[in-house]
Amino acid sequence: MLKQARTLLSRSLCDQSHSLFQGKVKASTLRGFASWSDSSAPPGRGFSDDAKPSGGGRVFAPYAIFKGKAALTVAPVLPVFAKIDSGNVCIERRGTVMMTFMPAIGQRKYDWAKKQMFALSATEVGSVISMGSKDSSEFFHDPSMKSSNSGQVTKSLSIKPYEDSKSQDGKGGYYFSLSVQNKILKTNHYLVVPVTIAEFAVMKTAFSFALPYIMGWDRLIVQGENAPQSFSTHPKTDPLQLASEWDR
Amino acid sequence: MLKQARTLLSRSLCDQSHSLFQGKVKASTLRGFASWSDSSAPPGRGFSDDAKPSGGGRVFAPYAIFKGKAALTVAPVLPVFAKIDSGNVCIERRGTVMMTFMPAIGQRKYDWAKKQMFALSATEVGSVISMGSKDSSEFFHDPSMKSSNSGQVTKSLSIKPYEDSKSQDGKGGYYFSLSVQNKILKTNHYLVVPVTIAEFAVMKTAFSFALPYIMGWDRLIVQGENAPQSFSTHPKTDPLQLASEWDR
Amino acid sequence: MLKQARTLLSRSLCDQSHSLFQGKVKASTLRGFASWSDSSAPPGRGFSDDAKPSGGGRVFAPYAIFKGKAALTVAPVLPVFAKIDSGNVCIERRGTVMMTFMPAIGQRKYDWAKKQMFALSATEVGSVISMGSKDSSEFFHDPSMKSSNSGQVTKSLSIKPYEDSKSQDGKGGYYFSLSVQNKILKTNHYLVVPVTIAEFAVMKTAFSFALPYIMGWDRLIVQGENAPQSFSTHPKTDPLQLASEWDR
Amino acid sequence: MLKQARTLLSRSLCDQSHSLFQGKVKASTLRGFASWSDSSAPPGRGFSDDAKPSGGGRVFAPYAIFKGKAALTVAPVLPVFAKIDSGNVCIERRGTVMMTFMPAIGQRKYDWAKKQMFALSATEVGSVISMGSKDSSEFFHDPSMKSSNSGQVTKSLSIKPYEDSKSQDGKGGYYFSLSVQNKILKTNHYLVVPVTIAEFAVMKTAFSFALPYIMGWDRLIVQGENAPQSFSTHPKTDPLQLASEWDR
Repeated sequence: MLKQARTLLSRSLCDQSHSLFQGKVKASTLRGFASWSDSSAPPGRGFSDDAKPSGGGRVFAPYAIFKGKAALTVAPVLPVFAKIDSGNVCIERRGTVMMTFMPAIGQRKYDWAKKQMFALSATEVGSVISMGSKDSSEFFHDPSMKSSNSGQVTKSLSIKPYEDSKSQDGKGGYYFSLSVQNKILKTNHYLVVPVTIAEFAVMKTAFSFALPYIMGWDRLIVQGENAPQSFSTHPKTDPLQLASEWDR
Repeated sequence: MLKQARTLLSRSLCDQSHSLFQGKVKASTLRGFASWSDSSAPPGRGFSDDAKPSGGGRVFAPYAIFKGKAALTVAPVLPVFAKIDSGNVCIERRGTVMMTFMPAIGQRKYDWAKKQMFALSATEVGSVISMGSKDSSEFFHDPSMKSSNSGQVTKSLSIKPYEDSKSQDGKGGYYFSLSVQNKILKTNHYLVVPVTIAEFAVMKTAFSFALPYIMGWDRLIVQGENAPQSFSTHPKTDPLQLASEWDR
Repeated sequence: MLKQARTLLSRSLCDQSHSLFQGKVKASTLRGFASWSDSSAPPGRGFSDDAKPSGGGRVFAPYAIFKGKAALTVAPVLPVFAKIDSGNVCIERRGTVMMTFMPAIGQRKYDWAKKQMFALSATEVGSVISMGSKDSSEFFHDPSMKSSNSGQVTKSLSIKPYEDSKSQDGKGGYYFSLSVQNKILKTNHYLVVPVTIAEFAVMKTAFSFALPYIMGWDRLIVQGENAPQSFSTHPKTDPLQLASEWDR
Repeated sequence: MLKQARTLLSRSLCDQSHSLFQGKVKASTLRGFASWSDSSAPPGRGFSDDAKPSGGGRVFAPYAIFKGKAALTVAPVLPVFAKIDSGNVCIERRGTVMMTFMPAIGQRKYDWAKKQMFALSATEVGSVISMGSKDSSEFFHDPSMKSSNSGQVTKSLSIKPYEDSKSQDGKGGYYFSLSVQNKILKTNHYLVVPVTIAEFAVMKTAFSFALPYIMGWDRLIVQGENAPQSFSTHPKTDPLQLASEWDR
């Protein structure tokens, strides 16, 4: 049952992003399963608001949770590196796990144009994957923090276990609630998606998989596997000199 | 003891799939260890019913559990991607973990032709890997769900701990039971394989390894490692502009 | 302290395997830290008895635990694949995690020639990584099982927590005991290495990392990432046809 | 809030390492967020004291924790391999997870020149990732251990839970304290960074990811995936001969 729904939903996801990329509005329902339409449909803006330049090569594979009042998709956003002197590379912007909430606008239809996003940092991801079955988490973002505009636009994500959480019979879960407050525009958006224990387990496993990549640690590993420098050039060096923690 | 059996079983597995690919029936027993034969042997159909086209390049490495009344093999089935506009790629069908049950037809012989399959979705995999030692899980699939044929052919997979589960001395485990009901053909298949705690631990670890791949998240990572776009092209951009959760 | 010892030990390990490959006996002690010598030193046989052909390209990176009466090294041994019809590939022999015990023959000197090996299967690895802090495991191997020579040469590996296990203060751990009995040669070898909780945690993490590889599941993943077939060639196919668990 | 700070900090990190590589001193503050300056600025020495030769190709992606009195960055340092006879490769120096502490020299400014480093070995990493919520760890390093200079320069790293640790409400955590004592120079450095449960969860996940790489086990895997030898050349060999634990 779940699987069947999933198959069609992901197809819908492909079709929708396909049309969104061309700035068209399409709200097909594909046999009554979920879809999303874009009520504003800005031309040339598409499905994924990550930092990559337009022009192709993107891969879309979000994990999607469709519920009655809203949908939630999660996907990793990779870090951005900058080339610095001497051919070295430094992480410039860390990756995140992007959580996108969309309100339902009918049975199994969601409005992409009204989406609200929340980008979990590495430490926030760490907070989520270390949550016990009765733990709660709350994260607060303000783009103008420490400036004079502080507090004008704020976002908060709350993760709270169902009050009647019953992990034994698999019926427990968590409420994921995103609140976005804009004091200038006087808007206040609030979206809630109930997440089952199984869906939360997928998130935890996928987040744990993604965490080293959004931290950029996979680059540290790749450099080792490919670089000829990882062979010692002076194998006769006194081993004591190799204990680099003693270097200054 | 276990290892020795394993070695021969996997050899048998190769030999069998070899012959099955040619549409021949072979039921060698290889020194009394397990094997499987195909009582129907359709020419040209082989060992793995995944979505890949025939013509080579497949790899077979299922994790196999051979017990008295039935055998169970598990292996990941990768997602299928579709190319959409602008050179972008979208996941079209999510991967699964395919569980294949085969009834025993003699001592350490299993009938491949009577196999029954159950494809675990990402969320169902999440459900399995989050199971505690006393938890149960049950999954229900209906290919005609939401259509007029709903309920005619159904599958359910149940995972239940042994009643006398004793995790301390390593003698506990779980019953994996697959029930396939076809009301049109009036058939009802029921296969049970007892799975030890050690075998379940292998499944959990292997499922956790496979989960990001059946979700397609490895593609999100690979695109980052190879793509030149993951270097920022404008390192002087105001960092505030990079916080993509604020984009619309 | 630990780190310093480790640095020298691993150097010693390289030097020793270097000399062993040439069939020479060398028992350098490198400033009083551990080393091993080969009391029999068969020419042309080297450090690692895995299934690979001689001729180079091997990588040695065992995790080594050196204790008073014996040393233990662990390293994964990859599976062997066989090409079958149609260009397909089947796992022929599953990988293992090879545990090698060596008796001490002096202070921080170990005799490579008297090593005893035990190859953990995937399921046995699953048993180890699922062990709780008070659990024990015992594995039994007999190469002649089910033949007339059954019971003549047997190996058993026992993993038991210290009786005075104190996980809180980090002073607990496990005894790894290998017993090898040969009734024909009337020999009986018994080697014990105490393993701290931290060393056991390294094993569990490294075993969990290695498990999908010794099962060959990484091949299933790699085939997906490289193969063009993982793009759907008929994106307009009815999604219902893609639910491969319904195929026969 | 956290994310915003993070973005600027990592940018600062790039800029600083950029200037440090050229031996310049720069102490920009980037809108009041954290930065570090080098009060001694040795020309030609840079950000990372790992074992790699100068000349480019390095990647910097440390996980950084900035607190009131000190900052802590952690990053893996890969192992070094040596080519031995016959084209084989042996791990010569194991990798580590390098922990770098820097004292604060003002609000959100840290002194890179006064950094103190501690390199966690694989076993010490195992100790950290197996810590329960109430466990403590202490590690002790002496570069001159077992020589006549033993005890003159010593380092110890202590990880202790907050006394008022409250994991339920997410307000608990650990004190990471590094003490470096030099009896010759009569110096005694002591740096403490409080680490939240979420930050510790990031460390545990990232350390678990990095552990197989600092052990060099990824090389064992890579050799398998690329090497043609991992296909059996004699598929008809008696499987019993393949059970390599029985080889001598």
